[in-house]
Amino acid sequence: MNIRMYIYILGKVLLIEGALMVLPIICGLFYGENQIIYYIACAVIYMAIGYLISMKKPKNMTVFIKDGCIATALSWVVLSIAGCIPFMLTKEIPSFTDAMFETASGFSTTGASILTDVEALSHVSLFWRSLTHWIGGMGVLVFLLAVVPMTGGSNMNLMRAESPGPTVGKIVPKVRSTAKMLYLIYLAMTVAEIIILFACGMPLFDSICTGFGTAGTGGFGVKNDSFASYAPHLQVITAVFMVLFGMNFNFYYYFTTKQVSKAFKMSEIKCYLAIIAVVTGIICFSVRGFYSSIGEALRQSFFQVATIITTTGFGTTDFDLWPSVPKLLLLGLMIVGACASSTGGGIKVARFQIMFKTVKREIQSYIHPKTVKQILIDGKAVDGEVVRSVALYFFIYLIIFSASMFVVAFEGHDLVTIFSSVAATFNNIGPGLSLVGPTQNYAFFNNISKWVFIFDMLAGRLELMPLIVFLTPTTYRGLFKKSLSSKA
Amino acid sequence: MNIRMYIYILGKVLLIEGALMVLPIICGLFYGENQIIYYIACAVIYMAIGYLISMKKPKNMTVFIKDGCIATALSWVVLSIAGCIPFMLTKEIPSFTDAMFETASGFSTTGASILTDVEALSHVSLFWRSLTHWIGGMGVLVFLLAVVPMTGGSNMNLMRAESPGPTVGKIVPKVRSTAKMLYLIYLAMTVAEIIILFACGMPLFDSICTGFGTAGTGGFGVKNDSFASYAPHLQVITAVFMVLFGMNFNFYYYFTTKQVSKAFKMSEIKCYLAIIAVVTGIICFSVRGFYSSIGEALRQSFFQVATIITTTGFGTTDFDLWPSVPKLLLLGLMIVGACASSTGGGIKVARFQIMFKTVKREIQSYIHPKTVKQILIDGKAVDGEVVRSVALYFFIYLIIFSASMFVVAFEGHDLVTIFSSVAATFNNIGPGLSLVGPTQNYAFFNNISKWVFIFDMLAGRLELMPLIVFLTPTTYRGLFKKSLSSKA
Repeated sequence: MNIRMYIYILGKVLLIEGALMVLPIICGLFYGENQIIYYIACAVIYMAIGYLISMKKPKNMTVFIKDGCIATALSWVVLSIAGCIPFMLTKEIPSFTDAMFETASGFSTTGASILTDVEALSHVSLFWRSLTHWIGGMGVLVFLLAVVPMTGGSNMNLMRAESPGPTVGKIVPKVRSTAKMLYLIYLAMTVAEIIILFACGMPLFDSICTGFGTAGTGGFGVKNDSFASYAPHLQVITAVFMVLFGMNFNFYYYFTTKQVSKAFKMSEIKCYLAIIAVVTGIICFSVRGFYSSIGEALRQSFFQVATIITTTGFGTTDFDLWPSVPKLLLLGLMIVGACASSTGGGIKVARFQIMFKTVKREIQSYIHPKTVKQILIDGKAVDGEVVRSVALYFFIYLIIFSASMFVVAFEGHDLVTIFSSVAATFNNIGPGLSLVGPTQNYAFFNNISKWVFIFDMLAGRLELMPLIVFLTPTTYRGLFKKSLSSKA
Repeated sequence: MNIRMYIYILGKVLLIEGALMVLPIICGLFYGENQIIYYIACAVIYMAIGYLISMKKPKNMTVFIKDGCIATALSWVVLSIAGCIPFMLTKEIPSFTDAMFETASGFSTTGASILTDVEALSHVSLFWRSLTHWIGGMGVLVFLLAVVPMTGGSNMNLMRAESPGPTVGKIVPKVRSTAKMLYLIYLAMTVAEIIILFACGMPLFDSICTGFGTAGTGGFGVKNDSFASYAPHLQVITAVFMVLFGMNFNFYYYFTTKQVSKAFKMSEIKCYLAIIAVVTGIICFSVRGFYSSIGEALRQSFFQVATIITTTGFGTTDFDLWPSVPKLLLLGLMIVGACASSTGGGIKVARFQIMFKTVKREIQSYIHPKTVKQILIDGKAVDGEVVRSVALYFFIYLIIFSASMFVVAFEGHDLVTIFSSVAATFNNIGPGLSLVGPTQNYAFFNNISKWVFIFDMLAGRLELMPLIVFLTPTTYRGLFKKSLSSKA
């Protein structure tokens, strides 16, 4: 329990958050909106506090796995609270619960909204709202590691706690280089999308916000109908970028190091693309009668599959009106999620691959007990420890899922709403079915349910363990004793 | 792959099934029903075939785990096919799919029915229908092991494949003694229930069928309204017996050996009873407005909780009309299921206990890595192998559940119907929600869905692995090669 280190990290996080608020402020200046004064105030205060409390670097910067979890959980809670204050100050989202919901939804790249009229927001707030997706997508601590030199070889535990997927891809031996490389790829792809969208006729403001929302696989839109009113070619471009951001970033890393053949051999990428192709095909066939042409049905199916499997959550059609098969497939994709080491949410394709291979081996052990082999992913043996922790991940996931449904059920909505609202927040997607369908929002839930969703969104983004460790009382056992003895 | 042994076991199974048909025949004689000629014909033919093919005992009776799986799966398939023929011959259920559904539902102790008018059936068929529950409850192979002396020390693999729960409770060192002991307890409790129900005013025929349905945690009733029209005290008696049959049978075994303190220390029993008490309390509170008194609300809540957690499926009220919280809790109980080594279905309380303890240890390993302990259940360390296979069980369960929902979804029913029909058949319960609610039945599904349910019911009863191994093509790899070489 290294409290000085936590404070140091929180300071840096506030510093970064304050600095990043400069971007929406510039946008607000451009549109001449009064709301920027609140953003300027917040930015200045956050940077000042952040600078002051992180001025003195603690001597002990060893990050144990527990510290990684607590520092990450704390950072994301502080990030969300600090991020929601401008919404309250501008009175655009006056309630703290609602503002916190919207901001946690932003940083966790969920994209679920309590706003009934998005277009009523100022540009500065819309910009900040979308930017939270971009910050949350790759992670604020990964950013911190990329820009701040931190000594000590155990920073991996910080990155591990924040990065999605069963194992952190150690593509580059040094944490700082990995973090830098990830952010460079991330930035380059975001800029590429913004330029392409703008060049193809989308307004610049919309292009930037869409770029942020796609890159972080978030899904906040700047229009009330989300993505439905954009031209078909803009929808296709965005869908392609969603798929790209849902891919394991190691794929792109291999490209930058000219190991292209290695990139194309990644089984997770193959599996992910195969799922998208097959499910798009089935859905297209099921909904062909809903649209005027097969081409439109294919575009709508592809967009919905891309938006759901990557857990982005942009919408171009009300899939709640579709038949049961496509709805069930989309619910399934919500839970599968994108690739590990991408910006997407959900359980992740890699975890399913590991479990499927383990099951296959288990069946094999019944049939031919003497020929049981190791589990291989991309030719490398998967450690038994990883298999165990993935299996546990599924179980913890189920527990949190069930407990969340139970609490939300007290509001008395229908079972599809209960199930899909939890699925859509816990997997960081946004839209669900029934009362939280693509054309609806989360405004009507009571505050208890909203806080459940806030927990689910953050827990889903941080992949369970950091928040669980942060909230387990025994984590703090002996805390006061130690502080006393260190003073003595 | 020991084909002679499979034939020997199948012969014995047919012999037992034919012999047990004598019971409904006696019942039919009493009521003077013509339908008994079909039952007599079947009984004679089954016993003749069974006797002929099991006359010569194979020399090699070694039962490897694979053989246990195949023999069990084969036995249950043959049992169901042979059991459904009388229904077809009497023309009471003329369609093969429907008759197979009803019989698989019977043997698997599900209790889901395709009959719209149960009361139209002859007494002989109603009796046989309920008797299938009793046979399926404790298992036909366990019965076989109890009555037929089988040499070779590896019969445990037969029993393991058929018995519910993560590990077969080796309460008695010898398989035959265990099987005998289990059936004696089972028989005594069934007889006790029949006598009590009869003494309290239920007609004898109803008492016997209810006894079979409760003991096997099956749920077929002999009335169209299931259990609603029986007097309240009969409902309470039945609910109590359901709870008793859902308990781990080791509990009763400890009683017979006067180790009462050991029985009351069983954590699974405590956990199971605690779940029943807590959920009954919450549901009673939620539905108090639906009934005229708190007493009635409590009785209805207790009966529904007992019928669902034990996966029996008798109904006294239409819980599909209840609010979301009780419905969601009942769906949860469907999946939790009863105790291991009981006659109930579902995932089993013991598996949840093991996973919860594993998760607790995992969290502990993050917080205090040096103090990680072994997982203990009732003071005994749980083998890492058991933990691994329980974790895999959850995953395989999820895969089959999802795949079943996907196929059933093609009929286009609502999501609650799809989810709850799979949950209710896979966990061997019977009634679900919406279109398969307590007042409904499974008649309206198409044949494809019905076969999915037949698979789910048998897979659920045999706890996945036997049917999976039976249906995996590589199981039979080299089969013909070996037969040829053995002939040479």
